[in-house]
Amino acid sequence: MPLVTIKMFEGRTEEQKKALVEKVTEAISETTGASADSVTIVIEEMTKNHYAVGGKRYSDL
Amino acid sequence: MPLVTIKMFEGRTEEQKKALVEKVTEAISETTGASADSVTIVIEEMTKNHYAVGGKRYSDL
Amino acid sequence: MPLVTIKMFEGRTEEQKKALVEKVTEAISETTGASADSVTIVIEEMTKNHYAVGGKRYSDL
Amino acid sequence: MPLVTIKMFEGRTEEQKKALVEKVTEAISETTGASADSVTIVIEEMTKNHYAVGGKRYSDL
Amino acid sequence: MPLVTIKMFEGRTEEQKKALVEKVTEAISETTGASADSVTIVIEEMTKNHYAVGGKRYSDL
Amino acid sequence: MPLVTIKMFEGRTEEQKKALVEKVTEAISETTGASADSVTIVIEEMTKNHYAVGGKRYSDL
Repeated sequence: MPLVTIKMFEGRTEEQKKALVEKVTEAISETTGASADSVTIVIEEMTKNHYAVGGKRYSDL
Repeated sequence: MPLVTIKMFEGRTEEQKKALVEKVTEAISETTGASADSVTIVIEEMTKNHYAVGGKRYSDL
Repeated sequence: MPLVTIKMFEGRTEEQKKALVEKVTEAISETTGASADSVTIVIEEMTKNHYAVGGKRYSDL
Repeated sequence: MPLVTIKMFEGRTEEQKKALVEKVTEAISETTGASADSVTIVIEEMTKNHYAVGGKRYSDL
Repeated sequence: MPLVTIKMFEGRTEEQKKALVEKVTEAISETTGASADSVTIVIEEMTKNHYAVGGKRYSDL
Repeated sequence: MPLVTIKMFEGRTEEQKKALVEKVTEAISETTGASADSVTIVIEEMTKNHYAVGGKRYSDL
């Protein structure tokens, strides 16, 4: 049941993404008691021109 | 008013997507009483390396 | 795999919500070929003071 | 703290997107009292074949 | 067409939320050329025990 | 920068949620190289009548 969305910048390797979903699933299962099989994770990659903090896009810093 | 987001794997044809939004809009209108015109649908396509269940990405199965 | 989020105003009955997820799942399965068992739907209810079109909240119309 | 997601059609220039995050951050800070530095904005671009109102995709109008 | 979601802490007044959607709609219309009528805004309020940065929930700071 | 949304059923204790954000932040930082301070997590709780798989709401099982 836990549905997880992870938005992050482009550029991670496939190995990093593989480890990411594994470790995050473990972390959720350990702390909430949800079974690992019930954890769904969606990765959404972003580009720096589409992400801003304080009115500034990371592509404009 | 109903705002619908449908996340699914890449690969459906334009014909399938056309039918998808039509039928989902009908289903929502019939069951909730919302007018079809008020139903907004956003399709978001995903790749298998960005979708995981039980700590495994579909690209690693 | 299709992950669906339906945001709509509060006020539908449990019967309406039951029919909603049933019919939307059918619509998605029929048109995309995804198996019904793979369709996940999340309903998110909203209040009229938290929904605006054209700069006007529905609670202020 | 305010986390803002703006989904819009592809096609705006980088200048428009730069001004967009600036002005939206100002608008949020002015009206809610949140500091501008605490406002995070994510832009998500869409294509017309993935956006439908009233059961019709904009690409099919 | 621009679909905007604003997640922020509970506690703003109805007057602040009214001004928020007005000003954000203006900001989007001015900078992207989208007509104000096409801008949809959803406000989603959060509590401090459900928001964390750096592994710390705001309710635990 | 990683923005994480975790949707899960109501009912976890505050202790579980505290541990959840801590462990998930660690998992993301370790596997992606993002600094822990840059990880934002939003918890969104759901009720069983608003979550369905295979056309059946968990409240109707």
